[in-house]
Amino acid sequence: KKIIFVFLDKRMALGRSVLVYGGAGALGRSVISRFKKDNYFTVSVDFVENAEADQKIKLEGDNMINNVQLIKKALDGKKLDAVVCAAGGWAGGSIESESGLEGVDKMWKMNVVSAVCCSHVAANHLNEDGLLVLTGSSAGLGGTPGMVGYGLAKAATHQLVQSLAAPNSHLPAHTSAIGILPITLDTPSNRQGMPGADFSSWTKTSEIADKLFTWSSDKSSRPASGSLIEIVTHQDTTQWLNVTVEVKKGQ
Amino acid sequence: KKIIFVFLDKRMALGRSVLVYGGAGALGRSVISRFKKDNYFTVSVDFVENAEADQKIKLEGDNMINNVQLIKKALDGKKLDAVVCAAGGWAGGSIESESGLEGVDKMWKMNVVSAVCCSHVAANHLNEDGLLVLTGSSAGLGGTPGMVGYGLAKAATHQLVQSLAAPNSHLPAHTSAIGILPITLDTPSNRQGMPGADFSSWTKTSEIADKLFTWSSDKSSRPASGSLIEIVTHQDTTQWLNVTVEVKKGQ
Repeated sequence: KKIIFVFLDKRMALGRSVLVYGGAGALGRSVISRFKKDNYFTVSVDFVENAEADQKIKLEGDNMINNVQLIKKALDGKKLDAVVCAAGGWAGGSIESESGLEGVDKMWKMNVVSAVCCSHVAANHLNEDGLLVLTGSSAGLGGTPGMVGYGLAKAATHQLVQSLAAPNSHLPAHTSAIGILPITLDTPSNRQGMPGADFSSWTKTSEIADKLFTWSSDKSSRPASGSLIEIVTHQDTTQWLNVTVEVKKGQ
Repeated sequence: KKIIFVFLDKRMALGRSVLVYGGAGALGRSVISRFKKDNYFTVSVDFVENAEADQKIKLEGDNMINNVQLIKKALDGKKLDAVVCAAGGWAGGSIESESGLEGVDKMWKMNVVSAVCCSHVAANHLNEDGLLVLTGSSAGLGGTPGMVGYGLAKAATHQLVQSLAAPNSHLPAHTSAIGILPITLDTPSNRQGMPGADFSSWTKTSEIADKLFTWSSDKSSRPASGSLIEIVTHQDTTQWLNVTVEVKKGQ
């Protein structure tokens, strides 16, 4: 066991490393697998263990500060090349119902708190030229009356990407902070929840994992820091579309 | 005491009424005063009492559901013509520090939870043709690396305005949901905190109160539902500027 430990530690020191927040979910597992295939040292952060990851960090409860302290302690000063926030969730609900309000609270914790924790870990552990990927949503680009919490949480995530890409964000030099905006992921739970849907318009998690691997390993392939990249799949073909948000002020 | 109660109740039934969430803060007090001057029945919702208000509803703790239940119970089926979210707050902090993360949590509670509670009350108590005003911020229209929590909370609020203005938002028919985006309010605490600043570029709370009163009492004066209105004061003159956010998708 001592030998394995030394081996892993060396691989991390010499090779590249990725931390996946939400590493035991469908997207997170795909990302861990893909990076591991190319010898990245993989760290999974989640409430549930992903046995495939080289290092597992288990979250406890929903206190943001406790959880980032726990992650930073487990990383013990180690540096990372990529940090991916694959955590998140969906809840519907409109503003007039109390269940809609409960959804707001849930979406805050599942989506915004995850993105914020992840970004804090990236600020403290990424190497220069590192990659930070947060998960937004096309839905958050406009109004979402039937899922108020989900929409506002994703809009907050998009704005966070802008903050992280700005000068003086306190991320390590030359970090690329990118938001990915998937529509529907082809996951077992989505197939179970929407059995009659057109799966050819859903994005495979392995395809996203491939793209993130390319962005991490080849800096020239990355969109500019601050980009929001919409992931649109149609007839099993996926496009990565840059979304620009233009603010116009005037009378 | 019985007589006064009947009098207030009649005024509410016959005349117009406004609920101000954060009614004991600087902006909230100005709004209550202005509407009261023109015989609106005024309801102040806050942790602190505003003695001037016709009805005071005291918030307890930070549980969103408990607080909206408490407000709805106190309103007891009464209808409102305007609901104003004057609550909110500011905290700085960037992503790498734990105090920045604490700021995120604080900004969520002070700004987003307030806006969401207010909108829920509006959905359940506004009359048709009513007015709902949420408080956003120009800062939330772009990245805010030195105040990550504030920026993302305000971006979430702006998106909420879009949701509320959308069809099927479950607000009463013909409600105007409008976001106001002040820069710096001329309040005693801001004067104390920034004593050397140029006060002629700060917006007086009474000026905002006047505008909200006009919007409430004269529907033809209102910006379209879903508008974000930036409030820019320069040399003691205030402009109300419509902000449009254009999302462009492409390669």
